[in-house]
Amino acid sequence: MEKGKILQVAMPIFKAMTALDFVGPYEVLNCLPNVKVVFVSHSVGLYTDLGTLTVQATASFDQVPKPDIVVVPGGVGTRALLEDEAILQWLRKVHETSLYTTSVCTGSLLLAAAGLLNGLEATTHWNAFDLLASLGAKPVKTRVVQQGKIITAAGVSSGIDMALQLAALITDETTAKAVQLYVEYDPQPPFDCGSTDKAGPEVLSKARTLAHNRTTPFTELK
Amino acid sequence: MEKGKILQVAMPIFKAMTALDFVGPYEVLNCLPNVKVVFVSHSVGLYTDLGTLTVQATASFDQVPKPDIVVVPGGVGTRALLEDEAILQWLRKVHETSLYTTSVCTGSLLLAAAGLLNGLEATTHWNAFDLLASLGAKPVKTRVVQQGKIITAAGVSSGIDMALQLAALITDETTAKAVQLYVEYDPQPPFDCGSTDKAGPEVLSKARTLAHNRTTPFTELK
Repeated sequence: MEKGKILQVAMPIFKAMTALDFVGPYEVLNCLPNVKVVFVSHSVGLYTDLGTLTVQATASFDQVPKPDIVVVPGGVGTRALLEDEAILQWLRKVHETSLYTTSVCTGSLLLAAAGLLNGLEATTHWNAFDLLASLGAKPVKTRVVQQGKIITAAGVSSGIDMALQLAALITDETTAKAVQLYVEYDPQPPFDCGSTDKAGPEVLSKARTLAHNRTTPFTELK
Repeated sequence: MEKGKILQVAMPIFKAMTALDFVGPYEVLNCLPNVKVVFVSHSVGLYTDLGTLTVQATASFDQVPKPDIVVVPGGVGTRALLEDEAILQWLRKVHETSLYTTSVCTGSLLLAAAGLLNGLEATTHWNAFDLLASLGAKPVKTRVVQQGKIITAAGVSSGIDMALQLAALITDETTAKAVQLYVEYDPQPPFDCGSTDKAGPEVLSKARTLAHNRTTPFTELK
Protein backbone atom coordinates (compact mmCIF):
# COMPACT_ATOMS: atom_id res chain seq x y z
CA MET A 1 0.00 0.00 0.00
CA GLU A 2 1.28 3.44 -0.96
CA LYS A 3 2.61 5.12 2.17
CA GLY A 4 0.70 8.20 3.31
CA LYS A 5 -2.16 7.54 0.91
CA ILE A 6 -5.66 8.41 2.15
CA LEU A 7 -7.95 5.43 1.63
CA GLN A 8 -11.48 6.18 0.52
CA VAL A 9 -14.02 3.93 2.25
CA ALA A 10 -17.41 3.89 0.53
CA MET A 11 -20.45 2.83 2.51
CA PRO A 12 -23.60 2.44 0.40
CA ILE A 13 -26.76 3.32 2.30
CA PHE A 14 -30.36 2.77 1.29
CA LYS A 15 -33.93 2.72 2.54
CA ALA A 16 -34.53 0.24 5.40
CA MET A 17 -30.85 -0.45 6.00
CA THR A 18 -29.72 -1.49 9.49
CA ALA A 19 -27.87 1.47 10.99
CA LEU A 20 -25.50 -0.41 13.32
CA ASP A 21 -24.31 -2.53 10.37
CA PHE A 22 -22.42 0.45 8.98
CA VAL A 23 -22.01 2.72 12.02
CA GLY A 24 -19.96 0.03 13.80
CA PRO A 25 -17.36 -0.20 11.00
CA TYR A 26 -17.64 3.53 10.36
CA GLU A 27 -16.71 4.41 13.93
CA VAL A 28 -13.72 2.06 13.85
CA LEU A 29 -12.40 3.05 10.41
CA ASN A 30 -13.09 6.75 10.92
CA CYS A 31 -10.56 6.75 13.78
CA LEU A 32 -7.76 5.89 11.37
CA PRO A 33 -5.63 8.78 10.17
CA ASN A 34 -5.43 7.34 6.63
CA VAL A 35 -9.17 6.83 6.05
CA LYS A 36 -11.93 9.05 4.70
CA VAL A 37 -15.44 7.58 4.67
CA VAL A 38 -18.11 8.55 2.14
CA PHE A 39 -21.77 7.57 2.37
CA VAL A 40 -22.99 6.81 -1.10
CA SER A 41 -26.35 5.91 -2.63
CA HIS A 42 -28.46 6.15 -5.78
CA SER A 43 -28.50 9.90 -5.31
CA VAL A 44 -27.37 12.46 -2.75
CA GLY A 45 -30.02 12.77 -0.06
CA LEU A 46 -31.55 11.33 3.07
CA TYR A 47 -32.21 7.64 3.68
CA THR A 48 -34.17 6.23 6.61
CA ASP A 49 -33.49 2.88 8.22
CA LEU A 50 -36.03 0.34 9.45
CA GLY A 51 -36.80 2.65 12.36
CA THR A 52 -36.52 6.40 12.88
CA LEU A 53 -32.88 7.06 11.96
CA THR A 54 -32.25 9.15 8.86
CA VAL A 55 -28.73 9.44 7.45
CA GLN A 56 -27.37 11.55 4.64
CA ALA A 57 -25.71 10.13 1.52
CA THR A 58 -23.30 12.80 0.35
CA ALA A 59 -22.41 11.22 -2.98
CA SER A 60 -24.10 9.24 -5.72
CA PHE A 61 -22.70 5.94 -6.99
CA ASP A 62 -21.25 7.52 -10.12
CA GLN A 63 -19.41 10.10 -8.02
CA VAL A 64 -17.48 7.33 -6.23
CA PRO A 65 -16.05 5.20 -9.05
CA LYS A 66 -12.90 3.85 -7.38
CA PRO A 67 -13.15 3.59 -3.60
CA ASP A 68 -10.28 1.73 -1.96
CA ILE A 69 -12.63 -0.09 0.39
CA VAL A 70 -16.34 -0.87 0.22
CA VAL A 71 -18.44 -1.74 3.26
CA VAL A 72 -21.97 -2.87 2.35
CA PRO A 73 -24.41 -2.87 5.28
CA GLY A 74 -27.49 -5.05 5.51
CA GLY A 75 -31.06 -4.59 6.56
CA VAL A 76 -34.41 -5.67 5.21
CA GLY A 77 -33.93 -3.01 2.52
CA THR A 78 -31.38 -5.26 0.80
CA ARG A 79 -34.24 -7.45 -0.45
CA ALA A 80 -35.53 -4.60 -2.61
CA LEU A 81 -32.08 -4.22 -4.20
CA LEU A 82 -31.37 -7.80 -5.25
CA GLU A 83 -32.25 -6.92 -8.83
CA ASP A 84 -31.34 -3.24 -8.69
CA GLU A 85 -28.77 -2.86 -11.45
CA ALA A 86 -27.66 0.60 -10.28
CA ILE A 87 -26.15 -0.74 -7.06
CA LEU A 88 -25.19 -4.16 -8.46
CA GLN A 89 -23.32 -2.67 -11.43
CA TRP A 90 -21.57 -0.24 -9.08
CA LEU A 91 -20.53 -3.12 -6.81
CA ARG A 92 -19.16 -5.13 -9.75
CA LYS A 93 -17.27 -2.11 -11.06
CA VAL A 94 -15.74 -0.92 -7.77
CA HIS A 95 -14.75 -4.48 -6.87
CA GLU A 96 -12.46 -4.55 -9.91
CA THR A 97 -10.14 -1.99 -8.32
CA SER A 98 -10.92 -2.17 -4.59
CA LEU A 99 -8.35 -3.15 -2.02
CA TYR A 100 -11.09 -4.79 0.08
CA THR A 101 -14.76 -5.41 -0.65
CA THR A 102 -16.68 -6.11 2.55
CA SER A 103 -20.15 -6.56 3.93
CA VAL A 104 -21.96 -6.74 7.25
CA CYS A 105 -25.10 -8.78 7.92
CA THR A 106 -27.33 -9.10 4.84
CA GLY A 107 -25.05 -6.75 2.92
CA SER A 108 -23.48 -9.98 1.63
CA LEU A 109 -26.75 -10.70 -0.22
CA LEU A 110 -25.95 -7.68 -2.41
CA LEU A 111 -22.38 -8.85 -3.02
CA ALA A 112 -23.81 -12.25 -3.97
CA ALA A 113 -26.51 -10.75 -6.18
CA ALA A 114 -23.74 -8.82 -7.96
CA GLY A 115 -22.06 -12.16 -8.67
CA LEU A 116 -19.06 -11.49 -6.44
CA LEU A 117 -19.55 -14.45 -4.10
CA ASN A 118 -20.09 -17.25 -6.64
CA GLY A 119 -18.72 -20.41 -5.08
CA LEU A 120 -17.03 -18.49 -2.25
CA GLU A 121 -17.44 -19.01 1.47
CA ALA A 122 -19.25 -16.06 3.04
CA THR A 123 -21.45 -15.21 5.98
CA THR A 124 -24.53 -13.13 6.77
CA HIS A 125 -27.19 -12.70 9.46
CA TRP A 126 -28.20 -16.12 10.86
CA ASN A 127 -31.70 -15.58 9.49
CA ALA A 128 -30.53 -15.21 5.87
CA PHE A 129 -28.31 -18.25 5.26
CA ASP A 130 -30.73 -19.91 2.82
CA LEU A 131 -31.12 -16.74 0.81
CA LEU A 132 -27.34 -16.25 0.65
CA ALA A 133 -26.93 -19.84 -0.59
CA SER A 134 -29.62 -19.33 -3.24
CA LEU A 135 -27.56 -16.42 -4.57
CA GLY A 136 -24.50 -18.61 -5.19
CA ALA A 137 -22.36 -18.26 -2.05
CA LYS A 138 -21.38 -20.99 0.40
CA PRO A 139 -22.66 -19.71 3.78
CA VAL A 140 -20.46 -20.50 6.77
CA LYS A 141 -21.23 -19.93 10.43
CA THR A 142 -18.18 -17.82 11.22
CA ARG A 143 -18.32 -14.27 12.56
CA VAL A 144 -15.89 -12.85 10.01
CA VAL A 145 -15.02 -14.67 6.77
CA GLN A 146 -12.16 -13.57 4.53
CA GLN A 147 -11.73 -14.90 1.01
CA GLY A 148 -8.95 -12.98 -0.67
CA LYS A 149 -9.96 -9.34 -0.70
CA ILE A 150 -13.60 -10.09 0.13
CA ILE A 151 -14.53 -10.00 3.80
CA THR A 152 -18.07 -10.75 4.97
CA ALA A 153 -19.29 -10.40 8.55
CA ALA A 154 -22.24 -11.99 10.34
CA GLY A 155 -25.23 -10.07 11.76
CA VAL A 156 -25.33 -6.39 12.74
CA SER A 157 -22.80 -5.97 15.58
CA SER A 158 -20.22 -8.25 13.93
CA GLY A 159 -19.20 -5.34 11.74
CA ILE A 160 -17.19 -3.97 14.67
CA ASP A 161 -15.09 -7.14 14.85
CA MET A 162 -14.68 -7.14 11.06
CA ALA A 163 -13.62 -3.49 10.96
CA LEU A 164 -10.97 -3.99 13.63
CA GLN A 165 -9.48 -6.81 11.55
CA LEU A 166 -9.63 -4.57 8.51
CA ALA A 167 -8.00 -1.73 10.47
CA ALA A 168 -5.04 -4.02 11.20
CA LEU A 169 -4.81 -4.95 7.50
CA ILE A 170 -4.70 -1.34 6.27
CA THR A 171 -2.55 0.09 9.10
CA ASP A 172 -0.74 -2.08 11.64
CA GLU A 173 -1.64 -4.11 14.72
CA THR A 174 -0.75 -1.39 17.23
CA THR A 175 -2.95 1.15 15.46
CA ALA A 176 -5.86 -1.30 15.27
CA LYS A 177 -5.47 -2.03 18.98
CA ALA A 178 -5.42 1.70 19.73
CA VAL A 179 -8.69 2.08 17.85
CA GLN A 180 -10.19 -0.80 19.84
CA LEU A 181 -9.16 1.00 23.02
CA TYR A 182 -10.40 4.36 21.74
CA VAL A 183 -13.88 2.96 21.07
CA GLU A 184 -13.52 1.05 24.34
CA TYR A 185 -14.51 -2.24 22.75
CA ASP A 186 -14.18 -4.45 25.80
CA PRO A 187 -17.52 -6.19 25.40
CA GLN A 188 -19.44 -7.28 28.48
CA PRO A 189 -22.79 -8.44 27.16
CA PRO A 190 -25.24 -9.14 29.98
CA PHE A 191 -26.18 -12.51 28.48
CA ASP A 192 -24.32 -15.19 26.51
CA CYS A 193 -26.84 -15.65 23.74
CA GLY A 194 -25.50 -13.70 20.78
CA SER A 195 -25.36 -16.66 18.40
CA THR A 196 -27.92 -19.30 17.45
CA ASP A 197 -25.69 -22.00 18.98
CA LYS A 198 -25.83 -20.32 22.38
CA ALA A 199 -29.32 -18.86 22.52
CA GLY A 200 -31.57 -21.90 22.96
CA PRO A 201 -34.97 -22.51 21.35
CA GLU A 202 -37.07 -20.07 23.41
CA VAL A 203 -34.80 -17.09 22.71
CA LEU A 204 -34.39 -18.10 19.05
CA SER A 205 -38.14 -18.30 18.61
CA LYS A 206 -38.60 -14.89 20.25
CA ALA A 207 -35.85 -13.40 18.05
CA ARG A 208 -37.59 -14.74 14.94
CA THR A 209 -40.83 -13.11 16.11
CA LEU A 210 -39.06 -9.79 16.72
CA ALA A 211 -37.52 -10.01 13.24
CA HIS A 212 -40.87 -10.85 11.67
CA ASN A 213 -42.71 -8.03 13.42
CA ARG A 214 -40.04 -5.47 12.56
CA THR A 215 -39.81 -6.36 8.92
CA THR A 216 -43.46 -7.02 8.10
CA PRO A 217 -44.25 -3.32 7.54
CA PHE A 218 -41.47 -3.37 4.94
CA THR A 219 -42.51 -6.45 3.03
CA GLU A 220 -43.81 -4.25 0.23
CA LEU A 221 -40.13 -3.52 -0.40
CA LYS A 222 -39.53 -7.08 -1.51
CA MET B 1 -44.80 -0.14 34.08
CA GLU B 2 -48.15 0.21 32.34
CA LYS B 3 -48.71 -2.86 30.21
CA GLY B 4 -48.81 -2.28 26.47
CA LYS B 5 -47.54 1.28 26.80
CA ILE B 6 -45.19 2.51 24.09
CA LEU B 7 -42.08 3.98 25.68
CA GLN B 8 -40.64 7.08 24.07
CA VAL B 9 -36.84 6.99 23.99
CA ALA B 10 -35.27 10.40 23.33
CA MET B 11 -31.73 10.56 21.99
CA PRO B 12 -30.28 14.07 21.87
CA ILE B 13 -27.89 14.57 18.98
CA PHE B 14 -25.57 17.49 18.32
CA LYS B 15 -22.60 18.64 16.26
CA ALA B 16 -19.47 16.48 16.73
CA MET B 17 -21.27 13.71 18.58
CA THR B 18 -19.91 10.15 18.36
CA ALA B 19 -22.29 8.18 16.18
CA LEU B 20 -21.76 4.71 17.64
CA ASP B 21 -22.54 6.08 21.12
CA PHE B 22 -26.20 6.37 20.18
CA VAL B 23 -26.53 3.96 17.25
CA GLY B 24 -25.52 1.02 19.48
CA PRO B 25 -28.34 1.64 22.00
CA TYR B 26 -30.67 2.72 19.20
CA GLU B 27 -30.28 -0.56 17.34
CA VAL B 28 -30.92 -2.56 20.52
CA LEU B 29 -33.88 -0.54 21.81
CA ASN B 30 -35.43 -0.10 18.37
CA CYS B 31 -35.89 -3.88 18.20
CA LEU B 32 -38.28 -3.78 21.14
CA PRO B 33 -41.97 -3.80 20.29
CA ASN B 34 -42.76 -1.29 23.07
CA VAL B 35 -40.20 1.38 22.12
CA LYS B 36 -40.29 4.36 19.79
CA VAL B 37 -37.04 6.33 19.44
CA VAL B 38 -36.93 10.05 18.65
CA PHE B 39 -33.77 11.98 17.73
CA VAL B 40 -34.00 15.39 19.34
CA SER B 41 -31.85 18.51 19.28
CA HIS B 42 -31.94 22.30 19.56
CA SER B 43 -33.96 22.35 16.37
CA VAL B 44 -35.16 19.95 13.71
CA GLY B 45 -32.42 19.44 11.15
CA LEU B 46 -29.18 17.76 10.26
CA TYR B 47 -26.24 17.26 12.62
CA THR B 48 -22.81 15.97 11.61
CA ASP B 49 -20.55 13.92 13.85
CA LEU B 50 -16.79 14.20 14.22
CA GLY B 51 -16.42 12.63 10.78
CA THR B 52 -18.65 12.46 7.72
CA LEU B 53 -21.88 11.06 9.17
CA THR B 54 -24.90 13.36 9.15
CA VAL B 55 -28.04 12.38 11.04
CA GLN B 56 -31.44 14.00 11.21
CA ALA B 57 -33.03 15.30 14.40
CA THR B 58 -36.76 15.06 13.84
CA ALA B 59 -37.84 16.99 16.93
CA SER B 60 -36.68 19.96 18.98
CA PHE B 61 -36.18 19.74 22.73
CA ASP B 62 -39.46 21.53 23.48
CA GLN B 63 -41.35 19.03 21.31
CA VAL B 64 -40.21 16.14 23.53
CA PRO B 65 -41.08 17.27 27.05
CA LYS B 66 -41.67 13.92 28.74
CA PRO B 67 -39.71 11.04 27.20
CA ASP B 68 -39.82 7.81 29.18
CA ILE B 69 -36.13 7.17 28.59
CA VAL B 70 -33.26 9.48 27.68
CA VAL B 71 -30.00 8.24 26.12
CA VAL B 72 -27.34 10.97 25.90
CA PRO B 73 -24.44 10.13 23.57
CA GLY B 74 -20.96 11.57 23.87
CA GLY B 75 -18.39 12.95 21.52
CA VAL B 76 -16.07 15.92 21.52
CA GLY B 77 -19.15 18.05 20.81
CA THR B 78 -20.25 17.62 24.43
CA ARG B 79 -17.54 20.10 25.48
CA ALA B 80 -19.33 22.90 23.62
CA LEU B 81 -22.55 22.10 25.49
CA LEU B 82 -21.32 22.10 29.09
CA GLU B 83 -22.82 25.56 29.60
CA ASP B 84 -25.57 25.29 26.99
CA GLU B 85 -28.71 25.96 29.01
CA ALA B 86 -31.04 24.75 26.25
CA ILE B 87 -29.87 21.16 26.55
CA LEU B 88 -29.04 21.30 30.27
CA GLN B 89 -32.48 22.68 31.21
CA TRP B 90 -34.11 20.06 29.01
CA LEU B 91 -32.10 17.29 30.72
CA ARG B 92 -33.07 18.57 34.20
CA LYS B 93 -36.73 18.79 33.19
CA VAL B 94 -37.05 15.41 31.46
CA HIS B 95 -35.18 13.70 34.30
CA GLU B 96 -37.98 14.72 36.69
CA THR B 97 -40.40 12.35 34.96
CA SER B 98 -38.16 9.85 33.13
CA LEU B 99 -38.19 6.16 33.90
CA TYR B 100 -34.46 5.98 33.08
CA THR B 101 -31.94 8.70 32.31
CA THR B 102 -28.87 7.27 30.65
CA SER B 103 -25.66 8.21 28.89
CA VAL B 104 -22.91 6.67 26.81
CA CYS B 105 -19.29 7.81 26.77
CA THR B 106 -18.90 11.55 27.44
CA GLY B 107 -22.68 11.96 27.40
CA SER B 108 -22.34 11.67 31.18
CA LEU B 109 -20.52 15.03 31.15
CA LEU B 110 -23.81 16.61 30.08
CA LEU B 111 -25.77 14.80 32.79
CA ALA B 112 -23.15 16.03 35.28
CA ALA B 113 -23.21 19.57 33.91
CA ALA B 114 -26.99 19.53 34.35
CA GLY B 115 -26.39 18.68 38.01
CA LEU B 116 -27.88 15.21 37.81
CA LEU B 117 -24.76 13.31 38.90
CA ASN B 118 -23.80 15.34 41.99
CA GLY B 119 -22.12 12.93 44.40
CA LEU B 120 -23.20 9.90 42.37
CA GLU B 121 -21.01 7.16 40.97
CA ALA B 122 -20.91 7.34 37.18
CA THR B 123 -18.70 6.44 34.26
CA THR B 124 -17.53 7.89 30.96
CA HIS B 125 -14.84 7.43 28.30
CA TRP B 126 -11.50 6.56 29.96
CA ASN B 127 -10.05 9.80 28.62
CA ALA B 128 -12.62 12.00 30.43
CA PHE B 129 -12.54 10.81 34.05
CA ASP B 130 -10.97 14.02 35.39
CA LEU B 131 -13.49 16.19 33.60
CA LEU B 132 -16.39 14.09 34.90
CA ALA B 133 -15.03 14.41 38.44
CA SER B 134 -14.67 18.19 38.04
CA LEU B 135 -18.39 18.32 37.23
CA GLY B 136 -19.37 16.72 40.55
CA ALA B 137 -19.68 12.99 39.81
CA LYS B 138 -17.63 10.16 41.30
CA PRO B 139 -16.09 8.41 38.28
CA VAL B 140 -15.82 4.64 38.51
CA LYS B 141 -14.06 2.27 36.14
CA THR B 142 -17.04 0.04 35.44
CA ARG B 143 -18.51 -0.55 32.00
CA VAL B 144 -22.11 0.15 33.03
CA VAL B 145 -22.98 1.99 36.27
CA GLN B 146 -26.54 2.14 37.60
CA GLN B 147 -27.52 4.52 40.37
CA GLY B 148 -31.27 4.38 40.80
CA LYS B 149 -32.81 5.41 37.52
CA ILE B 150 -29.56 6.87 36.18
CA ILE B 151 -27.41 4.54 34.09
CA THR B 152 -24.08 5.68 32.64
CA ALA B 153 -21.93 3.62 30.28
CA ALA B 154 -18.21 3.82 29.47
CA GLY B 155 -16.77 4.73 26.06
CA VAL B 156 -18.48 4.41 22.68
CA SER B 157 -19.22 0.67 22.19
CA SER B 158 -20.30 0.17 25.82
CA GLY B 159 -23.68 1.61 24.93
CA ILE B 160 -24.59 -1.76 23.42
CA ASP B 161 -24.02 -3.53 26.75
CA MET B 162 -25.92 -0.79 28.58
CA ALA B 163 -28.86 -0.94 26.21
CA LEU B 164 -29.20 -4.71 26.57
CA GLN B 165 -29.40 -4.28 30.35
CA LEU B 166 -31.96 -1.54 29.84
CA ALA B 167 -33.91 -3.76 27.45
CA ALA B 168 -34.19 -6.38 30.21
CA LEU B 169 -35.40 -3.70 32.66
CA ILE B 170 -38.17 -2.40 30.39
CA THR B 171 -39.26 -5.76 28.95
CA ASP B 172 -38.06 -9.11 30.31
CA GLU B 173 -34.91 -11.21 30.18
CA THR B 174 -36.08 -13.44 27.33
CA THR B 175 -36.90 -10.43 25.15
CA ALA B 176 -33.55 -8.79 25.92
CA LYS B 177 -31.78 -12.04 25.04
CA ALA B 178 -33.75 -12.25 21.80
CA VAL B 179 -32.58 -8.74 20.91
CA GLN B 180 -28.98 -9.72 21.65
CA LEU B 181 -29.39 -12.67 19.29
CA TYR B 182 -31.14 -10.53 16.67
CA VAL B 183 -28.25 -8.06 16.57
CA GLU B 184 -25.92 -11.08 16.79
CA TYR B 185 -23.97 -9.57 19.67
CA ASP B 186 -21.54 -12.43 20.21
CA PRO B 187 -18.40 -10.28 20.33
CA GLN B 188 -15.15 -11.68 19.01
CA PRO B 189 -12.76 -8.74 19.07
CA PRO B 190 -9.49 -9.57 17.33
CA PHE B 191 -7.46 -8.19 20.26
CA ASP B 192 -7.93 -8.05 24.02
CA CYS B 193 -7.16 -4.39 24.52
CA GLY B 194 -10.51 -2.64 24.86
CA SER B 195 -9.83 -1.17 28.30
CA THR B 196 -6.92 0.83 29.70
CA ASP B 197 -6.14 -2.03 32.11
CA LYS B 198 -5.60 -4.44 29.24
CA ALA B 199 -4.08 -2.27 26.53
CA GLY B 200 -0.55 -1.61 27.77
CA PRO B 201 1.44 1.66 27.50
CA GLU B 202 2.24 1.57 23.76
CA VAL B 203 -1.38 1.07 22.69
CA LEU B 204 -2.61 3.60 25.25
CA SER B 205 -0.17 6.19 23.99
CA LYS B 206 -1.23 5.56 20.40
CA ALA B 207 -4.91 5.80 21.36
CA ARG B 208 -4.27 9.16 23.04
CA THR B 209 -2.57 10.36 19.85
CA LEU B 210 -5.50 9.18 17.72
CA ALA B 211 -7.89 10.97 20.08
CA HIS B 212 -5.83 14.14 20.00
CA ASN B 213 -5.54 14.18 16.21
CA ARG B 214 -9.24 13.52 15.72
CA THR B 215 -10.43 16.15 18.13
CA THR B 216 -7.93 18.94 17.43
CA PRO B 217 -9.88 20.27 14.41
CA PHE B 218 -12.82 20.63 16.78
CA THR B 219 -11.09 22.41 19.64
CA GLU B 220 -12.73 25.65 18.59
CA LEU B 221 -15.91 24.01 19.87
CA LYS B 222 -14.61 24.12 23.44
